[in-house]
Amino acid sequence: MLYIPNSSPIPFEEAQRLILSVIRPLPVITIPLSKALGYYLAETVRADHDVPMFDRSTVDGYALRAEDVINASASDPVKLKVLEEIPAGYLPQQKITQGTASRIMTGAPIPEGANAVVMVEKTENAMEDSESVLVYQSVKIGDAIAKKGQDVEEGKDVLTQGTLLGPIELGLLATFGIASVAVYAKPKVGILSTGSELLNVDEPIVPGKLRDSNGVMLAGQVSQAGGEPVYFGIAPDKVEELEKKMLEILQQVDILVTSGGVSMGEYDFLGKVFEKINAKVIFWKTLARPGMPVLCGVWQDKPIFALAGNPASSYVNAHLYVLPAIRYMSGSKDPLPKRVTVVCDEAIEGKQMLHTRFLRGLTYVSPTGELRVKISKKQASNVLSSFLESNCLVKVPGGKGFNAGEKAEVYLLGAVEELRQ
Amino acid sequence: MLYIPNSSPIPFEEAQRLILSVIRPLPVITIPLSKALGYYLAETVRADHDVPMFDRSTVDGYALRAEDVINASASDPVKLKVLEEIPAGYLPQQKITQGTASRIMTGAPIPEGANAVVMVEKTENAMEDSESVLVYQSVKIGDAIAKKGQDVEEGKDVLTQGTLLGPIELGLLATFGIASVAVYAKPKVGILSTGSELLNVDEPIVPGKLRDSNGVMLAGQVSQAGGEPVYFGIAPDKVEELEKKMLEILQQVDILVTSGGVSMGEYDFLGKVFEKINAKVIFWKTLARPGMPVLCGVWQDKPIFALAGNPASSYVNAHLYVLPAIRYMSGSKDPLPKRVTVVCDEAIEGKQMLHTRFLRGLTYVSPTGELRVKISKKQASNVLSSFLESNCLVKVPGGKGFNAGEKAEVYLLGAVEELRQ
Repeated sequence: MLYIPNSSPIPFEEAQRLILSVIRPLPVITIPLSKALGYYLAETVRADHDVPMFDRSTVDGYALRAEDVINASASDPVKLKVLEEIPAGYLPQQKITQGTASRIMTGAPIPEGANAVVMVEKTENAMEDSESVLVYQSVKIGDAIAKKGQDVEEGKDVLTQGTLLGPIELGLLATFGIASVAVYAKPKVGILSTGSELLNVDEPIVPGKLRDSNGVMLAGQVSQAGGEPVYFGIAPDKVEELEKKMLEILQQVDILVTSGGVSMGEYDFLGKVFEKINAKVIFWKTLARPGMPVLCGVWQDKPIFALAGNPASSYVNAHLYVLPAIRYMSGSKDPLPKRVTVVCDEAIEGKQMLHTRFLRGLTYVSPTGELRVKISKKQASNVLSSFLESNCLVKVPGGKGFNAGEKAEVYLLGAVEELRQ
Repeated sequence: MLYIPNSSPIPFEEAQRLILSVIRPLPVITIPLSKALGYYLAETVRADHDVPMFDRSTVDGYALRAEDVINASASDPVKLKVLEEIPAGYLPQQKITQGTASRIMTGAPIPEGANAVVMVEKTENAMEDSESVLVYQSVKIGDAIAKKGQDVEEGKDVLTQGTLLGPIELGLLATFGIASVAVYAKPKVGILSTGSELLNVDEPIVPGKLRDSNGVMLAGQVSQAGGEPVYFGIAPDKVEELEKKMLEILQQVDILVTSGGVSMGEYDFLGKVFEKINAKVIFWKTLARPGMPVLCGVWQDKPIFALAGNPASSYVNAHLYVLPAIRYMSGSKDPLPKRVTVVCDEAIEGKQMLHTRFLRGLTYVSPTGELRVKISKKQASNVLSSFLESNCLVKVPGGKGFNAGEKAEVYLLGAVEELRQ
């Protein structure tokens, strides 16, 4: 009844390792910086100049010599001669010498001879003398000056290959004039649901059937991981037709994800289709629950993931295997989901099995800054609603349980927050 | 020199409250479910049927009466007569009675009379009798049956108005046949950079100038908060031209964000433009650093945020004020950034000021499950690079410092991870 020889289930970490060993990053493309959010950088960018390129004022005020205003106070201001006004974007023309200052705007270059800037709020124009300023406060050398190279020094690597581009990274690329940026292409991910019990979302419900919820759920997970989902609907349930459909999809996408059709019975036939289309099987079944029956193969460098049809199985399988593949093909050097240590609120009963269980839970921040986890009530693999009150998967190794207060590892699926009462 | 009367700086929480009091959610639109990821639901969706709608099998196997196989074992199997085969999506035709079973597929409805399912792996076809099955294991009542209503009960609210739609929410909407979904529109956010020192990203660098990094950075922040950024380049630095430009942009967008042009000097003129275009000032200056000088107004229900030009000021201002406005206008009922409690790795020196400081830091998970924060080295408001090694803003109230080991509050900007050595 199994189409795959030597099909002992393997540990999920081994499954992850196997997937990453057979795929590779997609080709490098060059795109406008304004479109680059969420892409992985394909080049290392080195600073070709200091940032800032010059000592600049961080306030509106007067550039001066700190030693000239060492005794300045509100009751005893120091009067300085104003040489010029330096707007941001313009170069100073005059050198500051003893007893002089120049009006300077935020971001403008510090004139030669000045070693500090006093904020305009601490000064006043000398009424009787428009070419002078009264300074009401002393300043220290370096005050309100952003030094050349303070942010980034010339010659340093600003961002290295493989960096995920977020708002800060885009800002730094802009600073260095990278208007077009070399990134890895993002994978198109075909999504196909299988199962004779499935209805399309817009079909009326009838006894014995249910609507396809995996399609749009998997598409959402793919999008969040940076892939471009393409939904191909509900698959035909004849081997020949499914074979044709899958080959047709594989021409158009970089990754194919199916859900359903991988359980043990004879109505499940994904393995047969793999054989027919000449997809090389990478693994079949893992020591993980939910989602133990998962079939992964590769067709002309394109990974195919045939996930179990129950929604929780599909979700967990996608998190463990599909999303890392998307990130790796997108250029990430660190594509596996991250685990963090948390403290168990309650005991988690151990079960006599080799399988690692992934329990839905809510990780929250306690008032003392501790990460703690509550296990969600419904864990059945056909239940989707319990994910609404969950934000993590708690990893429970085979045979192991946890006492209340013991440390466990979780995969975070969303933000952690403090619990509200 | 200030264009705004009564311009005492206000606490940042008060600024946030004021913004949310003058804006409202955008109109409700109906979009295909497949496009709804990241939108906020504009209706409450109630379950119009149980999920599952019927008791269904969670495995491939045989539906039977648990009492019939109570003594079944590998050495002493129980033989049952097979009545029919029930594929997923089909309705059973026969009732299970004593000594009978029906072959059943994952997801198929449980036939009348059966109270458990035994996995196919624990059975064997009786060789000499193709209409019988040998069961090698006892089962308990309810085994491998997903009960009607186990996931969602008919009549319950599945998702309430204001819910952010993620993959799980999309899956649940699909289950209930919501092929088109009512959501709040997302705001278009115009982004305009001001400053005579600015160059476009594709211009060569020249002394005294710098390239506009805020534009693409703010666009990235806007995208991540679900807004649709539209970059309008670098603004003219004459009041009349800027006035015309801003009015032109305001016709096209729901929110306008400028950066630069709000410091204290006379080259800064956003306040004057606000007056000229008849924008109502909501607040001017906050007791927060970086980003103290921020001017917020409203023009025909559209908020305008004039942020300070230094990149860290712009970033923090956007996080505190602009992103909550985007989320609120997108339909979020909980738009303010979340704070969590963490433990300080090192002391944070207090400063004699009323201003709340937002220090860049790295919040990480310790091996004992504690959230701890390290303060980043460079905190100057013109420095952008230090955000690369940060994932949070540590809130340091005016006048307050922290000892090592003391608890502080942070705004998380990204995922928390364990530190690698």
